[in-house]
Amino acid sequence: MRRPPLGGRFFDLQYANLKVGAAVTQHKIRMRVAIVTISDSVSRGTSKDASGPGVRDRCAQLGWEVVSEQVLPDEPVEIRGRLVSIAEGGSADLILTTGGTGIGPRDSTPEATTQACQKLLPGISELMRDEGRKKTSRAALSRAVAGVRGRVLIVNLPGSPRGALESLDAVAELLPHALQVLGGARHD
Amino acid sequence: MRRPPLGGRFFDLQYANLKVGAAVTQHKIRMRVAIVTISDSVSRGTSKDASGPGVRDRCAQLGWEVVSEQVLPDEPVEIRGRLVSIAEGGSADLILTTGGTGIGPRDSTPEATTQACQKLLPGISELMRDEGRKKTSRAALSRAVAGVRGRVLIVNLPGSPRGALESLDAVAELLPHALQVLGGARHD
Amino acid sequence: MRRPPLGGRFFDLQYANLKVGAAVTQHKIRMRVAIVTISDSVSRGTSKDASGPGVRDRCAQLGWEVVSEQVLPDEPVEIRGRLVSIAEGGSADLILTTGGTGIGPRDSTPEATTQACQKLLPGISELMRDEGRKKTSRAALSRAVAGVRGRVLIVNLPGSPRGALESLDAVAELLPHALQVLGGARHD
Repeated sequence: MRRPPLGGRFFDLQYANLKVGAAVTQHKIRMRVAIVTISDSVSRGTSKDASGPGVRDRCAQLGWEVVSEQVLPDEPVEIRGRLVSIAEGGSADLILTTGGTGIGPRDSTPEATTQACQKLLPGISELMRDEGRKKTSRAALSRAVAGVRGRVLIVNLPGSPRGALESLDAVAELLPHALQVLGGARHD
Repeated sequence: MRRPPLGGRFFDLQYANLKVGAAVTQHKIRMRVAIVTISDSVSRGTSKDASGPGVRDRCAQLGWEVVSEQVLPDEPVEIRGRLVSIAEGGSADLILTTGGTGIGPRDSTPEATTQACQKLLPGISELMRDEGRKKTSRAALSRAVAGVRGRVLIVNLPGSPRGALESLDAVAELLPHALQVLGGARHD
Repeated sequence: MRRPPLGGRFFDLQYANLKVGAAVTQHKIRMRVAIVTISDSVSRGTSKDASGPGVRDRCAQLGWEVVSEQVLPDEPVEIRGRLVSIAEGGSADLILTTGGTGIGPRDSTPEATTQACQKLLPGISELMRDEGRKKTSRAALSRAVAGVRGRVLIVNLPGSPRGALESLDAVAELLPHALQVLGGARHD
């Protein structure tokens, strides 16, 4: 997948302080983000993607590079397959999904994501729900998960435009560090 | 299963504001609750059910309709079977269990509930523990889970009378909304 | 395994108030702790164990008796086997691991611990992360779990010296009570 040239839209870079061994070094972290909107109605074309574009704009504000935007129906096998294929494709460091994290009969994003991941990061989900509950008690109903496949981080965001951004904001500071660790540095 | 006539003991109805699409509409939500006390000693008749009646009274205060009260021993296969049978029987929207959520050798309610559910709602468990910890650090030892089978919500409460009510109070506001979503409206 | 004589280094005993039935009784709880440092580099001898000795000293301050200190590489099968063997050996009431709880490619302590346990205690993990996040947002990346095998409690601590002690402090008050319950008294 082609990436936008430096100096283009995604020219901002992310910096993080990271301890490697005893020394504190500073690394440029390039966050390449794939956004996947998961919604039956958006996929069918009967409703507008209300959350994906907001997530894309927030990523741009964070200085992250959005490398793809896709829409999928609430079909767990399809979702899982796409997440695996993006994660193994090498073009993204972070996959952000939006939608399908609720308790409705068709919501299956968390299950599909769990199957696509080799490790889960329950603290990310807890953090998103904790922060969300400061805004609305309904955040407790989100079943969003986060995890790792290879060196790629996968994070579910809710499907409501506001919920998606609030969840992303809750963990945005943490994700560059997580990706740095996944690249081989040790956190623990 | 017969339900009490309107105007009888359970005449109060629950209202919830719920976004459906762009419009905010108000729905009457009828909460039909099955209470299951899980305790070897209550089941054997060697101790009194200390938590079930308190849960029943709190449900009545909340305007929820208690359709059944049952007692089971701490036998995971039996618990799971009963939860599935109530959920599929169509007479209850919400199953509240009390007891068997601790770490003792016989406590098996969370495992049995997990097996009975098609989806788990970790945010409900986190909320009950978070709120519980404001009262006692021991709330962190509760392994209570919550989940969904079909359109029925299943929520574990601890077996101590106080813990059961505190856990129920922590999520009571959320449950009518969750059930509304399960009925087909979309939360996410 | 021999235990230090009373009056020696580990002479302090732990007391806990515990409700048994209706009466409040006070029990002496003897905490026998096995510490397992999990780190490839410490195991190879290429780096110093930075967290195990700190955990040992904190246990001594808490009046707990450290019965063994071991080092293992980040090998899940080996970790799981050792945890099971300690839990079934009868010489320890509590196993504290340190290290391997992060998201790096070799970190596998939580998975190995999950397999070694018969029951998980998600509230312990949540409590450690919640408390940790008051110090650093990176605590949310810890995947540490806690659980039970037989009557033995197994708790993962992070591998950073500060993180290990902060996590231990977050749950130290709770663990004697948990062990008392595991011994047969009912919490729930």
